[in-house]
Amino acid sequence: MLDADLERLGDQIDRLVTVEMRPAHGSVPAGLVVPLYQVCRAANGRPLSTAAAEALVNSVTDRPLLIVTGAGAPPALPAGETDGPPGAVTLALAAQRGLRARPQLITEEAHAPAVRECLKIATDGDIPLQIFPYGDPATAGLAAERILDRHTPGAVVFVERDGANAEGRYHGVRGNCRAPLDVARADLLAAAARRRGITTIGIGDGGNEVGFGGVREQVRTLFPRRADCTEGCPSGRITTVETDVCVSAGVSNWGAYGVTAALAAMIKDLDLIPAPAQEHALVEACLRGGARDGATDDHAISVDGIPSEGHSAIVTLLRTIAAFTSGQPVK
Amino acid sequence: MLDADLERLGDQIDRLVTVEMRPAHGSVPAGLVVPLYQVCRAANGRPLSTAAAEALVNSVTDRPLLIVTGAGAPPALPAGETDGPPGAVTLALAAQRGLRARPQLITEEAHAPAVRECLKIATDGDIPLQIFPYGDPATAGLAAERILDRHTPGAVVFVERDGANAEGRYHGVRGNCRAPLDVARADLLAAAARRRGITTIGIGDGGNEVGFGGVREQVRTLFPRRADCTEGCPSGRITTVETDVCVSAGVSNWGAYGVTAALAAMIKDLDLIPAPAQEHALVEACLRGGARDGATDDHAISVDGIPSEGHSAIVTLLRTIAAFTSGQPVK
Repeated sequence: MLDADLERLGDQIDRLVTVEMRPAHGSVPAGLVVPLYQVCRAANGRPLSTAAAEALVNSVTDRPLLIVTGAGAPPALPAGETDGPPGAVTLALAAQRGLRARPQLITEEAHAPAVRECLKIATDGDIPLQIFPYGDPATAGLAAERILDRHTPGAVVFVERDGANAEGRYHGVRGNCRAPLDVARADLLAAAARRRGITTIGIGDGGNEVGFGGVREQVRTLFPRRADCTEGCPSGRITTVETDVCVSAGVSNWGAYGVTAALAAMIKDLDLIPAPAQEHALVEACLRGGARDGATDDHAISVDGIPSEGHSAIVTLLRTIAAFTSGQPVK
Repeated sequence: MLDADLERLGDQIDRLVTVEMRPAHGSVPAGLVVPLYQVCRAANGRPLSTAAAEALVNSVTDRPLLIVTGAGAPPALPAGETDGPPGAVTLALAAQRGLRARPQLITEEAHAPAVRECLKIATDGDIPLQIFPYGDPATAGLAAERILDRHTPGAVVFVERDGANAEGRYHGVRGNCRAPLDVARADLLAAAARRRGITTIGIGDGGNEVGFGGVREQVRTLFPRRADCTEGCPSGRITTVETDVCVSAGVSNWGAYGVTAALAAMIKDLDLIPAPAQEHALVEACLRGGARDGATDDHAISVDGIPSEGHSAIVTLLRTIAAFTSGQPVK
């Protein structure tokens, strides 16, 4: 694919996955999806979906890949949310089938049932799931190093995964400060990977997730009251955790589907992009695992307040965009 | 609805309907959808979908409304194309039901069967269709004045309707110069309406349609070779015909659906936005009337090369956006 085609494809995908649709009083304050994207786009200098897909092609072809996901904490979201695992599993499958990567999912115990259910329906059971332990920063840092030692991944990707702020605390996008023991410090994998020169990609939608650390100051200025923490953390809710590429989308799953669509077009295998029924099944799997909608806290087949039809529509349009760009028939 | 909400709604809708997806060598050269939009957006200073919807609320509530549509000419598109009539009829119905406007469709003889079939399935037969005659500029100018005399409309809306260039010639978006007798000069309604202070709205996707005249020079610079006419018209293919609001979208139907969604959210009646099955039925109706896909010239249930699923996805997402903004349940 020519550079110009790749650039255009990325712009098309990025535009679609940053169309804002959010219930009032849901998650991110209204009107932030596009500005958050623009900050990340400016920092990257290139369309984010194709930048991430290209980074994956270059780093995990025939190699191990770690994908970290799972957001939400008690009391509202004790078993995580429907945003994250569907995108993470979709991307894992795409890398496995399209790049012969050897993906491994990582999450914490509370979110494991949802991720496990997604893996069950989407794979033949051949993508392993590893649990990142809860605990203090020192223990978690050691766990992160050990994981990297054992797997020597080509890349670590984070999909809707909390990143600590400057005080080492974790937050929901609404500024709610999470109890330290409620969140496993899997975000430490990002800094550890970067120290080793391993490619890192963060996919998020609110500024509190791993990846936004590189544009933290710009992101803070976008939020009302500069993205305060509801319990008074001086640095606020935006994470300091950086990645090489930060993909900002309207819904984190969409960001992951967008990267998948870019990869699918680049290697001309559109079947990597989930069909609407597959996407729907992944969200259902999250529910079976106890996850809830992260915007409404409901145990409903919806993501960030958006009903299933909306997500079906997004993957349908991604398939159309990818097909046109790669010259394949639209299916 | 507060001004800020209206602005945000318009930005969300505009972003969705300007996601580019086009078959290679289809219609508009690749990469132009967003720049065309940006030119029109900058000229308007406001989101285009809400600007157009607001203009309709202000001008046609309880009043007559003329909607002109029909594009495509022999030899490729002898009975018009699937882009235009579905959007025009959707908007007519929305204005009728939502604003108690008295809409009237206008097209030329060649495109009448497609428009008639759309009206048949979408209405109870109570929206009339009027035929704009073929002929020279003087005769057409008189016809335009007579139509305005008779109907005294509050607004005239053009959906994917050819506008003449500086030499008075009509073009496809690919620069193909249409034989003068193949196109009825219904675009003269725009200037005639403007002279009378009647609100005019143009909805298009290529720069050759009524509405883009106000940004003609900026649009020309976006095209390769400054939007030449394939037969050498000195002024090229971009129209000189202006409207008060010019809505530029990836597909003209989408532009009309977007204006409809904005109107639906403003008056809190989401049923004005077509459901996927209704949208599909409108495109089928065009085919029964002999219309073809304008990008592929195929007699297929597709619009601008995009299969039906893509259009279903767009109206689904418009319904979601409109529901969230207007605080209605998403259906």
